[in-house]
Amino acid sequence: MKAVAIDLGGSHAGIAIVEDRAILTSEHISLASEEGLKPALPKIQSVINGLLNNLAIKTSECAGLAIGFCGMVDGECSKVISTNGKYEDALSIDLAAWSMAEFGLPLAIENDARLALMGEWYAGAARGYEDVVMITLGTGIGGAVLIGGKPFRTKQPQAGCLGGHISVRSSGPACSCGAYGCMESEAAGWSLPLIVKNWPGVSQSKLASIPSVNFRSVFELAEEGDQIALDIRNHCLQVWAAGTIGLIHAYGPECVVFGGGVMQSADVILPFVRDYVKQHVWQPVGTTEIVAAALGNDAGLLGSVPLILAKMHSTQ
Amino acid sequence: MKAVAIDLGGSHAGIAIVEDRAILTSEHISLASEEGLKPALPKIQSVINGLLNNLAIKTSECAGLAIGFCGMVDGECSKVISTNGKYEDALSIDLAAWSMAEFGLPLAIENDARLALMGEWYAGAARGYEDVVMITLGTGIGGAVLIGGKPFRTKQPQAGCLGGHISVRSSGPACSCGAYGCMESEAAGWSLPLIVKNWPGVSQSKLASIPSVNFRSVFELAEEGDQIALDIRNHCLQVWAAGTIGLIHAYGPECVVFGGGVMQSADVILPFVRDYVKQHVWQPVGTTEIVAAALGNDAGLLGSVPLILAKMHSTQ
Repeated sequence: MKAVAIDLGGSHAGIAIVEDRAILTSEHISLASEEGLKPALPKIQSVINGLLNNLAIKTSECAGLAIGFCGMVDGECSKVISTNGKYEDALSIDLAAWSMAEFGLPLAIENDARLALMGEWYAGAARGYEDVVMITLGTGIGGAVLIGGKPFRTKQPQAGCLGGHISVRSSGPACSCGAYGCMESEAAGWSLPLIVKNWPGVSQSKLASIPSVNFRSVFELAEEGDQIALDIRNHCLQVWAAGTIGLIHAYGPECVVFGGGVMQSADVILPFVRDYVKQHVWQPVGTTEIVAAALGNDAGLLGSVPLILAKMHSTQ
Repeated sequence: MKAVAIDLGGSHAGIAIVEDRAILTSEHISLASEEGLKPALPKIQSVINGLLNNLAIKTSECAGLAIGFCGMVDGECSKVISTNGKYEDALSIDLAAWSMAEFGLPLAIENDARLALMGEWYAGAARGYEDVVMITLGTGIGGAVLIGGKPFRTKQPQAGCLGGHISVRSSGPACSCGAYGCMESEAAGWSLPLIVKNWPGVSQSKLASIPSVNFRSVFELAEEGDQIALDIRNHCLQVWAAGTIGLIHAYGPECVVFGGGVMQSADVILPFVRDYVKQHVWQPVGTTEIVAAALGNDAGLLGSVPLILAKMHSTQ
């Protein structure tokens, strides 16, 4: 099955023509989400037409158009319902009508984290599993959950997507979400500089002289034997591992997939999390594999075919 | 619809004849779970026959026999799969065959916490909601989750039932489950005496002179103005509230039902948890009602009819 795939991020879009588990061709463009989605649509349309032309594929050969959106989505109704400041006009744009009018294709739209997990499940690290939790370690900590091979849903669209906002230290500092000591405020890209700044004795570490600390610097200095960097790294590892146990206890998944830029240090992160979980999880029946995401930025694009298939199935 | 209902706890069983949302008659008997289920079955059978005789109801008028079991259950296959030391022989007893042979009734069996939530959903505090989390504050902290009006399930039977074992303080002391700083080890019946014993300055509190501290004593002394009791009470309230936010973030429920013996202090617990959640939850779409369980020990018995209905529906 061929499909048109759009992965709509806050500052860029990945656009592709996909066939089953392969990206036939793709292009990435910069977009200014603060200017809204309306001015972006003609640009996206032009890229799609160019990609189709290059491959000599007609839109009629495609089963649908899939969008991964960086906000909350009602997948059943194909509507954006909360934008979190990005493409705010998307709430009032009828994307299904746009897709049908411009390409003659039915639309399937989903939250970008959920779509990335569908991609990993269909074509990547979570192939063969039905119950999967994904944790994306980046500037924030993203989450998504599949149960029985379908995105976990309740009436509230955020369900399953707030795995980074389960408190691992409820007496800790405030998180951006309003709660305290979430996995995200304890160990993510945006909170790391604050953690480093307030770490006892940090002035004795090389970290103190780095203008903008990130996980790469922490992991590198830890590797070099900088004790403070090692302590901070271990703190973060422990937060991610304890948070993983919380998610395993909450959802009982067969597999947890770790993605995101911080996974450049997968060689340190995965063995630690696996060991910690093995020692401390309560799992009388079953086990949970802990693996690295396999598809990187292509995950959302490769989630398109299963998303369209699910949509076709649900409307039959 | 009439049904035979058995709520099988570690030291007792509640046995009832139910009709839709009402218990027609019931009896409670003591059982020794450490002796196994086999010697208990004739006693249970005798009570059921007595109850049916008293009401002049024939088994043929009942749609099925439902069991809530204090362990892990594969509801689809009607089998006990993990006993946690109670009724260990249940793993090898064919309860469906027993129910059919003795009463001519099809069996529906479920974990007791899940069945209690089904009862609250069908006939109690969670009526009208489809997505519900239940938290039972007692010796331990139990949990169960309904999504779309059905028990939340994955391939791992513990899914949704470990809400008390999501860490709220991952640097805290070990929990009975193997993890650290779970809601249960931070604020439940079994952990409370330890928390009190180690509380700084506890010797200045009346709590120090109480031989076996429980939540009743903590709440009573807090009410009398004992500062240490007040601090410990507030610690527990904060743990339950932070844990509730974690569960709301995990499952996106419309309703959280609090049950269990500790809810004798519902007048203090519910307002605190509601306020804390209102202030600190991240819920861009929807809200979550926080309510007290309404059915007490009858919840599991009243979960029988919806359990049997679900079973009939799934095997049609």
